Amino acid sequence: MDTVHPDSGARNELLDVTGISPDLPSRLVRQLEFIAEIDRLKTVLRLSPLLAADRRENDAEHSWHLAMMVLVLAEYAAEPIDIERTLKLVLVHDLVEIYAGDTCLFDDAAKADQHEREAAAASKLFALLPADQNAHFLALWEEFEARTTAEARFAKAMDRLQPLLLNAGNAGGTWRTPGVTEERVRQRTSVIADGSPRLWDLTQKLFALGVREGWLRNSP
Amino acid sequence: MDTVHPDSGARNELLDVTGISPDLPSRLVRQLEFIAEIDRLKTVLRLSPLLAADRRENDAEHSWHLAMMVLVLAEYAAEPIDIERTLKLVLVHDLVEIYAGDTCLFDDAAKADQHEREAAAASKLFALLPADQNAHFLALWEEFEARTTAEARFAKAMDRLQPLLLNAGNAGGTWRTPGVTEERVRQRTSVIADGSPRLWDLTQKLFALGVREGWLRNSP
Repeated sequence: MDTVHPDSGARNELLDVTGISPDLPSRLVRQLEFIAEIDRLKTVLRLSPLLAADRRENDAEHSWHLAMMVLVLAEYAAEPIDIERTLKLVLVHDLVEIYAGDTCLFDDAAKADQHEREAAAASKLFALLPADQNAHFLALWEEFEARTTAEARFAKAMDRLQPLLLNAGNAGGTWRTPGVTEERVRQRTSVIADGSPRLWDLTQKLFALGVREGWLRNSP
Repeated sequence: MDTVHPDSGARNELLDVTGISPDLPSRLVRQLEFIAEIDRLKTVLRLSPLLAADRRENDAEHSWHLAMMVLVLAEYAAEPIDIERTLKLVLVHDLVEIYAGDTCLFDDAAKADQHEREAAAASKLFALLPADQNAHFLALWEEFEARTTAEARFAKAMDRLQPLLLNAGNAGGTWRTPGVTEERVRQRTSVIADGSPRLWDLTQKLFALGVREGWLRNSP
């Protein structure tokens, strides 16, 4: 199977499929290798604290939580959305971080080359899949990033809203990071308004709570 | 808001919505409380080891991984399946474990009252939601359990196949638990054949690998 992926020698295989691949179609072998490789998303830590335990959230948990938020909150979308497509967008959107890492919303230096790093990661990761699925997953990731559809705008709104809820349940959470102000948080999360004006109203209440409780500062 | 949920006094609220709930519609308040409560799924540990790190998997990560498997492997379903419905089934199927805990596939004592415990948990958890969503989520969980639809049969197949892949990448993983034999694993995972005969073929190769490597025993 080494000839299937030019870089397979460089990867540390999480599931050695050579023991099961004889007689399996090469398409299925590639799909299994992808399914094994994305296990790594469970090890990519975000800055956000959980509500239910004293530790940071990982990207796989986060992606599942966003999918649940899509199911529960879809009625607040600015425009009608296709649920299947929106679920796919949130399930897939952070996969690039397996190779590119999590980039903090307030780390301007890291954000400068973030898209370039993530695009390279998307090319590498999705290339594990058969060509049709490679193209499909790449298109989903690009749609999420570009926010050119109602589904992508709502998916991105979920991605921005979820950590605000985690912060509100954690006495401010990442809002208390040095250099973070209400204005910067507001600016970096304003895309919520594009996906859902009604949930942007909720967001204002979260900010007001943060300021009132002293978790979120108005000035540096 | 105390009057909304009869048992809210007994719950340890993960997100105190009283600070943001004034002027919010009670429907949205209930939805937010549910979204906060299900954060607990990230703390429910399964027996299966991760592929990418030396620790056990939690239910939220597992649910995300199953959703990804649905996206990648749907072409192998025994019958045509609706992807949106199948995604919903796998995203929701383990939520009952927030209150009922994870039940080992080989723990006969725990399995005896598993359905009763999980049904009680489903009633309690989904009742946090507005009535229409409560009914919708409860129906999804019941459909998954009953496997009366092609979507539920494929979703259940993913739920059984995924830990086998984790075991195959972990020198046997939970197959090495005392009392576990190839026959018992085969019996408890045979529902994979109902969801996907082609992936049941793959499963045979995983068992053969396990036996060949000495990870899975033929007799107790």
